[in-house]
Amino acid sequence: MDLVKKPVTGMKDILPQEMKIRNYVLQQVRETYSKYGFTEIETPIVEHLGNLCSNQGGENEKLIFRILKRGEKLKLDEAKDVSDLSDSGLRYDLTLPLSRYYSNHSAELPVPFKAFQTGSVFRADRPQRGRFRQFTQCDIDILGDSSVLAETELILATSSLLLKLGFKGFTVHISDRKLLKAMAAASGIDENEASEVFIVLDKMDKIGIEGVKEELLQKGIASERIDSFLGFFLFKQDSSAEDETHAVSELGEKLGDNVSSDTVSSLISIIKNVSAVQKNSDYRIIFDPCLVRGMSYYTGTIFEITIDSFGSSIAGGGRYDGMVERFTGKAVPACGFSIGFERIITMLIEQGFKVPGDDGKVAFLLDKKLSSEKIPEIMERANNLREEGKVVLVTGMMKNKKFQKENLSQEGYQTIEEIFGN
Amino acid sequence: MDLVKKPVTGMKDILPQEMKIRNYVLQQVRETYSKYGFTEIETPIVEHLGNLCSNQGGENEKLIFRILKRGEKLKLDEAKDVSDLSDSGLRYDLTLPLSRYYSNHSAELPVPFKAFQTGSVFRADRPQRGRFRQFTQCDIDILGDSSVLAETELILATSSLLLKLGFKGFTVHISDRKLLKAMAAASGIDENEASEVFIVLDKMDKIGIEGVKEELLQKGIASERIDSFLGFFLFKQDSSAEDETHAVSELGEKLGDNVSSDTVSSLISIIKNVSAVQKNSDYRIIFDPCLVRGMSYYTGTIFEITIDSFGSSIAGGGRYDGMVERFTGKAVPACGFSIGFERIITMLIEQGFKVPGDDGKVAFLLDKKLSSEKIPEIMERANNLREEGKVVLVTGMMKNKKFQKENLSQEGYQTIEEIFGN
Repeated sequence: MDLVKKPVTGMKDILPQEMKIRNYVLQQVRETYSKYGFTEIETPIVEHLGNLCSNQGGENEKLIFRILKRGEKLKLDEAKDVSDLSDSGLRYDLTLPLSRYYSNHSAELPVPFKAFQTGSVFRADRPQRGRFRQFTQCDIDILGDSSVLAETELILATSSLLLKLGFKGFTVHISDRKLLKAMAAASGIDENEASEVFIVLDKMDKIGIEGVKEELLQKGIASERIDSFLGFFLFKQDSSAEDETHAVSELGEKLGDNVSSDTVSSLISIIKNVSAVQKNSDYRIIFDPCLVRGMSYYTGTIFEITIDSFGSSIAGGGRYDGMVERFTGKAVPACGFSIGFERIITMLIEQGFKVPGDDGKVAFLLDKKLSSEKIPEIMERANNLREEGKVVLVTGMMKNKKFQKENLSQEGYQTIEEIFGN
Repeated sequence: MDLVKKPVTGMKDILPQEMKIRNYVLQQVRETYSKYGFTEIETPIVEHLGNLCSNQGGENEKLIFRILKRGEKLKLDEAKDVSDLSDSGLRYDLTLPLSRYYSNHSAELPVPFKAFQTGSVFRADRPQRGRFRQFTQCDIDILGDSSVLAETELILATSSLLLKLGFKGFTVHISDRKLLKAMAAASGIDENEASEVFIVLDKMDKIGIEGVKEELLQKGIASERIDSFLGFFLFKQDSSAEDETHAVSELGEKLGDNVSSDTVSSLISIIKNVSAVQKNSDYRIIFDPCLVRGMSYYTGTIFEITIDSFGSSIAGGGRYDGMVERFTGKAVPACGFSIGFERIITMLIEQGFKVPGDDGKVAFLLDKKLSSEKIPEIMERANNLREEGKVVLVTGMMKNKKFQKENLSQEGYQTIEEIFGN
């Protein structure tokens, strides 16, 4: 009775019913992404603290679980602060470790390298309902491809996966960090102010354009600059795919020399490529100039997927061409898309999702009085059924047989055979 | 250039080729174990330090990665030793977390509960070739079943998995801790000496019976006791399944009142049950009185699987009826079997194992001069092929096209179509 039964704060045990759904989703992820030529890799859960704290992780860097040094490396008497006690920690995402991995192994990897990763990440967030300190991420990334093929493939693979999981009527939002910066520059907002302005802009879907305007005024941005900046968004409305590309061209013209023609034409090309495939499917791609995406490492295209019935986004990503350079000194184009694995699982559970079941599950209930001489032949029968592909449970008969059989039915056992001693 | 490219000491990045084999094996594990009615669960990677250091983990408790406390809980000024700095750590196995999990959730779980777990465990071992500080374990356990059905199912499921993975001619060794204790008691070796004697006995396959005798003499065990103790092993030789059960009976008779008839008859029953199924398969089960198994938590049956061509065991397990009681105060019968996942992967790689491949992998190489207007129709073609189940890669054509095509062939792309601009 001296041990603790509950998991550590903010972490959770996964029960069989949920695990079944998680495994099913992971299987769909694996199958879908492999069709797009992504290959799976794995990085260690423990990472160098210096890498984790390199300003690539934004707010997540405050939430790192640090691992205590061991043996001679740990000098408790001399330690002045936590940095003396620890030189490694648990990864808070899969992107930073992937950049390290690619830097370390690029000579052994194909060009471009299409990576798929899934695994646990850790953030010491304040525990709250539905949010855990250990959770699963699922990322695809393409390294070594600066062309629009990278964005196109990432968006198509992710959309195809969501369709396969039964999601419908979702929206792919796309923009480019460079457009956002150009809009700010064209409005006279300087680079120092710009990042603050983007954080406020990111709230557009929650507080509306008037709310954004008010917050920006409070931050001391000049009124005429705000009006000019927000003016860039007003022209844009829901529209067909063709209008989406027109909206990008139009914005490009308005921004003039503030943005390169490559940025504009790439965005148009990605929208056209995706539209060509999605035309008969139940989702759409829109140019969303209000899209910001939180992570500071994005350097170009940014995208995100929302489902109308669900508040926040269920997938997000973008181009982060600078990250590998931090390891090697050599720039490598990189672009990734991450699905909100835990959100998807929560949504499926709330929808009462049932994993396509195994047919013909069989249970043998063995009476306690059954002679041990009889068991070998039952094991043989069970083995034959298993070789035919059936799930077979061989277990002792309980005193409350009715209750036991009800429970087995609920677990999906269709055939329940009682075997008595005689 | 300020970041570290290599993984942290003793941990490894997994490259795509190895990952493919790991995923294949895990898929076989999942399919096989589910046919035996095991359901998958997951526990957090981080565990209470009090649980990890509860004398259930033997030597592994010295190898724990401790996590530094955070925020107000961390009082560096007052800290006298590591126990003041840390109250959680990374799990070193899956058995202790399973016992906590079962204690916490038994009301929601079926009886008996057949659990399958796979996941990373962490041990700060001295790094050495082929041995890593993070590695994967794969365990099956049956909780709440004190009958021989538990052992039978565990052994059959594990053997069936090994056969499926292509292993042949392996040997299941089985014994019971109670027999071992009875042999010691019958030889006049007292309980205090016994655990030391067992550690030496465990080396029988390496140093032989003479080596064991010598080491025991060095430890100060009286010569006549050693002779009596080792005498119990001499009668046992390689033999057919029927002789295996005879050997158990014979030993039981020799041990008289030192061992209960239940222990003897259970062991015989397990051997008979397994033999009934394995009779046409390429493995055997033997009674191995020299079997010790390292972990101190085992209370009854112990078993392990060896492959003749491979030095050490590739699976091991046994009954640990006392562990859940440490959490709940209530005894729960428990029995588990763990395959050496990393050893199996190493063996398969050394054997040049190839994962059954996907047929018809297609690559489209797009000329850089190709107009962006042409890409949408290529994406459509790729999509159609993917819907037919094919793996399709759409990528830019490299300057050294010959090299690129050779690499793609090696990755298994059978059709490589070049698409030029015109």
